[in-house]
Amino acid sequence: MNKKVKVNASILIIGNEILSGRTQDTNTSTLAIWLNSIGVNVGEVRVIPDVEDIIVDTLNLLRSTYDYVFTTGGIGPTHDDITASSIASAFKLKYEFNKKAYNILEKYYGKKNFNDGRKKMAKMPKSSKLILNPSSAAPGFMIRNVFCLPGVPSILNSMIENCKRYLKRGARTHSKTINYLTVESNISKEMSKIQNKYLKTVEIGSYPFFRLGRVGVSIVIRSIIKRDLEKSFNELKKVLKNKNIKLFN
Amino acid sequence: MNKKVKVNASILIIGNEILSGRTQDTNTSTLAIWLNSIGVNVGEVRVIPDVEDIIVDTLNLLRSTYDYVFTTGGIGPTHDDITASSIASAFKLKYEFNKKAYNILEKYYGKKNFNDGRKKMAKMPKSSKLILNPSSAAPGFMIRNVFCLPGVPSILNSMIENCKRYLKRGARTHSKTINYLTVESNISKEMSKIQNKYLKTVEIGSYPFFRLGRVGVSIVIRSIIKRDLEKSFNELKKVLKNKNIKLFN
Repeated sequence: MNKKVKVNASILIIGNEILSGRTQDTNTSTLAIWLNSIGVNVGEVRVIPDVEDIIVDTLNLLRSTYDYVFTTGGIGPTHDDITASSIASAFKLKYEFNKKAYNILEKYYGKKNFNDGRKKMAKMPKSSKLILNPSSAAPGFMIRNVFCLPGVPSILNSMIENCKRYLKRGARTHSKTINYLTVESNISKEMSKIQNKYLKTVEIGSYPFFRLGRVGVSIVIRSIIKRDLEKSFNELKKVLKNKNIKLFN
Repeated sequence: MNKKVKVNASILIIGNEILSGRTQDTNTSTLAIWLNSIGVNVGEVRVIPDVEDIIVDTLNLLRSTYDYVFTTGGIGPTHDDITASSIASAFKLKYEFNKKAYNILEKYYGKKNFNDGRKKMAKMPKSSKLILNPSSAAPGFMIRNVFCLPGVPSILNSMIENCKRYLKRGARTHSKTINYLTVESNISKEMSKIQNKYLKTVEIGSYPFFRLGRVGVSIVIRSIIKRDLEKSFNELKKVLKNKNIKLFN
């Protein structure tokens, strides 16, 4: 009987440097935390190389499967920055100068220093809307249901707020976490029973950890229905208390 | 004229905790660095939820596209650990106790403490080969071209060496990195020219950084042909020196 709207998204990380292991991706977690916080569920993440055909095919698949797609990487000034032109190809749109982006960049760099590489950052698919960049000027863009963001984590971070105006929010996912001084296999039966009881509305995950020389398990319960979250959480707490499993604070 | 063998792989990260942003994935970069170091090129990474149909479909696609697939996550003792049974479904193989794994785990936990949750970790697709786990006993497994590893980074790390014996290595990718005190747009033309000259054998990437209050660019050149790597690297160095671009040490 859940009438709340579910909105979903996928994240498309574009960049050889992630696939080579040279760079540790952190944008996935930044975007995922933010999207979940505004009720947009992340269904899938893909990391692909800077290769036009692959970008076009992957984007076309993801944008027809999810409400939104967020891309990161490949919108800088160099030869390996081919995300914007590839997205134009995917949508069969012209890849052209965006006047507003051009003006922003020209003002930021000054006419004298506004060279070809920098001008390239003003090119995007026709009729894109800008995602303003408060930290280094070069804007990202939105075209239909695709949001195109840079790869540098600090810059991406500064731009997230500016995506919000274009997004329809979903029902927010609520969550509760509780930590026990035990190992997963000691409580797997109990968790499983409660998960099955609330199969349609609640998601229970368990994650082992090692902290201060002790072994524990974090249990995370998530639901868009607050009442079911509370009920399943309390049942789990009760059954584990009866089993004498100690809390870890 | 490159006769060296290219071997490729994809990485499949399985876990709701990555998609919710709760956990920052680091296994991609661990696996990518290691695979590249033994000549296995990582072509793609996907992060998907703990949902059987999605695991089955994604695995079947990836294992028919790449020489190898490495999965992480979902092989613990709890209800949300469904990777092993899903992989059995994908291969249409029986999901059953592996005798050797059963014995390892029984010995590790002791007969008395070897409960159902722990026994579950000995179940895997029929005729899997074990990937031994020196840190917490529960083994991963290999079935055909799929390597199934745990999600906890420290445990995954300890098991990588034990995958090697099953892998055919490719031609190793060599790489050189050089850092300049400049911004990408100042050197994009030069990089582009050299990239085009060595289009078939060399890959040039550039990555801006901010360090010690200064702005710079790391240029990474990669190739499986050492001679072309050296040649393109030296040409780039020469042309940027002529342009008076300063090195950043």
